[in-house]
Amino acid sequence: MTGGPTEVAAILRQVLGDVGVLTGSDAAVRTVGGAEPVPLGADVVARPASTSEVSRVLAVCSELGVPVVPLGGGTGLVGGATAHGAVALSLERMRTIHEVDPADRVLVADAGVVLEAAQEAAAGAGLDLGLDLGARGSAQLGGLVATNAGGNGVIRHGMTRQRILGLEVVLADGTVVDGIRRMVKDNTGYDLASLFVGSEGTLGVVTRVAWRCSPRAPAKATALVSVPTFDAVVALLAALQTATAGTVSAYEVMWRSFYDLVAVESGRHRPPLPADSPFYVLTEVEFGSSSDAGERFAEVVRAMVDAGHVTDAVVAHTAADREALWAIRDDIPALVGALGIRLAYDISMPIATMEGYLSDLGEALEERFPGSRLVVFGHLGDGNLHVTIGGPDEHADEVDELVYAPLAALGGSISAEHGIGRVKRAHLRRSRSDPEIAVMRSIKQALDPHGILNPGVLFD
Amino acid sequence: MTGGPTEVAAILRQVLGDVGVLTGSDAAVRTVGGAEPVPLGADVVARPASTSEVSRVLAVCSELGVPVVPLGGGTGLVGGATAHGAVALSLERMRTIHEVDPADRVLVADAGVVLEAAQEAAAGAGLDLGLDLGARGSAQLGGLVATNAGGNGVIRHGMTRQRILGLEVVLADGTVVDGIRRMVKDNTGYDLASLFVGSEGTLGVVTRVAWRCSPRAPAKATALVSVPTFDAVVALLAALQTATAGTVSAYEVMWRSFYDLVAVESGRHRPPLPADSPFYVLTEVEFGSSSDAGERFAEVVRAMVDAGHVTDAVVAHTAADREALWAIRDDIPALVGALGIRLAYDISMPIATMEGYLSDLGEALEERFPGSRLVVFGHLGDGNLHVTIGGPDEHADEVDELVYAPLAALGGSISAEHGIGRVKRAHLRRSRSDPEIAVMRSIKQALDPHGILNPGVLFD
Repeated sequence: MTGGPTEVAAILRQVLGDVGVLTGSDAAVRTVGGAEPVPLGADVVARPASTSEVSRVLAVCSELGVPVVPLGGGTGLVGGATAHGAVALSLERMRTIHEVDPADRVLVADAGVVLEAAQEAAAGAGLDLGLDLGARGSAQLGGLVATNAGGNGVIRHGMTRQRILGLEVVLADGTVVDGIRRMVKDNTGYDLASLFVGSEGTLGVVTRVAWRCSPRAPAKATALVSVPTFDAVVALLAALQTATAGTVSAYEVMWRSFYDLVAVESGRHRPPLPADSPFYVLTEVEFGSSSDAGERFAEVVRAMVDAGHVTDAVVAHTAADREALWAIRDDIPALVGALGIRLAYDISMPIATMEGYLSDLGEALEERFPGSRLVVFGHLGDGNLHVTIGGPDEHADEVDELVYAPLAALGGSISAEHGIGRVKRAHLRRSRSDPEIAVMRSIKQALDPHGILNPGVLFD
Repeated sequence: MTGGPTEVAAILRQVLGDVGVLTGSDAAVRTVGGAEPVPLGADVVARPASTSEVSRVLAVCSELGVPVVPLGGGTGLVGGATAHGAVALSLERMRTIHEVDPADRVLVADAGVVLEAAQEAAAGAGLDLGLDLGARGSAQLGGLVATNAGGNGVIRHGMTRQRILGLEVVLADGTVVDGIRRMVKDNTGYDLASLFVGSEGTLGVVTRVAWRCSPRAPAKATALVSVPTFDAVVALLAALQTATAGTVSAYEVMWRSFYDLVAVESGRHRPPLPADSPFYVLTEVEFGSSSDAGERFAEVVRAMVDAGHVTDAVVAHTAADREALWAIRDDIPALVGALGIRLAYDISMPIATMEGYLSDLGEALEERFPGSRLVVFGHLGDGNLHVTIGGPDEHADEVDELVYAPLAALGGSISAEHGIGRVKRAHLRRSRSDPEIAVMRSIKQALDPHGILNPGVLFD
């Protein structure tokens, strides 16, 4: 930083006014992160109220050589928004929903709009945003775009990237790139929007999004089922997709280790099924009519029992039933309470390799850290496992190695949905080849030649 | 070209052998394009048999400063593969399907594999490639990727970009970037695959693709319906999506101008519905069970009649019925025979603006070129219209202006699915802003600094 924080703040106040710049204790109280928040770390928080103000902030910081960390809801889990020595650029004052068009099924909104507000606006027009996750009350659209957020509905609706029709982005030097588009079909050159999606604030600041919504399904039916083998878990998904013409909207697999811990041991739930099955699947299917959805789904589930894919099942008949089933899957606090969060991993791999991978990992853990506990759940249809390990907290680097090292040979990924941020950047090479990283760096160099945007994220 | 074609061919023969290099009449007979093919124009056609041979061809051409035009099936419609003064790099000898995995629903194949062969391989594993178009018998996966191909199933399965999990690409200098991934969820840096998809051969040569398939629906039901107003066309789509939980897999709208010409005047079909309706919609829905799909769809269609969205309908009960309905929608030869192909446009725009746009265009044509004929059909759910104009063939530039000029103000696109190529490059500015084009150019510069890949495509 060529100027100290005080000088930078003074210059930014000329651009944004007093309300647009936080310093001192107003900045110091800010935190980011999930279950165990950490300080944001910025001496200066810039809060522009418009795209042109974002442009001016970036032009100023670019000229001064001050690093800028774009800040959404601060709910990321990989340290992508910690801003020590940088100006944190928060979009929190840009939260207008400009348009919801039911014919084109598109929502156009400022990047600072909170997910839940966007979901409600879409629902009001008979649409489904196609994205949902636990942080819906604070995560902002811009942050969801910058991190290519996933969640429970990916099997039906894709990752955030697949929802984005167009973006308005401000580049490091303050150039406003208006790429707001509303059409699914627009083959006019490079897909700049997809490049910014998932770039974690390193290529530009997203200021406005055009979000592709889905038709809102009139009805969903939910069931928790016991599944006897991993092969049956895979076969069940295929059979469900076939029987419902591909309208499975959730397929959350809990290994017995997870169900035992969360549904039974924690004492926080009434276990809906006996704890004697190797796998439990929480699944949801969309239907076109609410009048017979429950009945039709129960029929499908009975066929799955007859086919041997399912040994026991509970179908939710009320909203309360449904919530009780989801409460088990979503009870991350119970998991964190029992095992801590230091050794929580978000990985993906081909489905055919999962059983072997987990068996090898379990053996390696038992050998190196006897008595450690391996708890697994995940979005199986997307190849995404959440793996939490209890015990060897003091040996995080060694455990990282045990978890990550086998993934490259399997074609797996060290980060399925959480991203790289600062926390995983040392491991990027495990999932990306040298030529890939070289191409990424050349794009970074082309768009942010002085490296002021979110330095330290993705790359060393 | 620093060496003449003869010298270049000689050097490439050392790399690829005689079978790998075509010159003289073997090269001269090659054509590209759709209904009216044009000469490929290359003096040298390089036909590598492996990724490492592609790499060597590019390294050689890069060193010699020889432009390279990547060539797929040559079925594009915007002059993206004409190769005058360049080496045409054909992937036709790379056509191995490496893997079809039903659990991950992924197909991994060489770029030279023809679409139909990939569709058949996927179907054999119970999967649906999610892409289909008229050129399926010759279009290659690499070309479909490079052009971000669309087609009739986009409403259900998205454009090609949404099917691509990972790509192997060779850069201009011969660097092989192995980005083959198989997971829907892999948040480890920039989305390089999406950048190459739709880049029309200007950033790299796609050599291998990992294609995300969909579950194959057990049954489809098809109907042709008469619709009384444009508002009803829009309402019908929303109602169908709701009633079927979003499993509408085709929604092809034919304006009366199209139906009159193709179904009636051409004498090539037995009109399944009277020619007295302003709109006809050919729609298809996926169902989970073949036993009752027809019956359930007929029920849905009856409800649409009751709701006033539909005035008349034919539901296909046999494969022959279905084919007869699609034959009308797909009878581009009848259209070309009557109107020529010079004035055929592929545009997109917000649905709410379509009626006004077409009415204004009709008036402008009638005023400037009295008696000219405007025929319209399209993939309405995707905002994509195909507009063909008969009459003022000798005034193509003026007609281009009438068709394209209003699109910018509507947020429309001059190319919905066909791309820019060389044919539309002068019009790129109508759909992309100067900052967007500047970003595209900076990416082009970063990946192909000497501009040897498909020069003249996209940019002047």
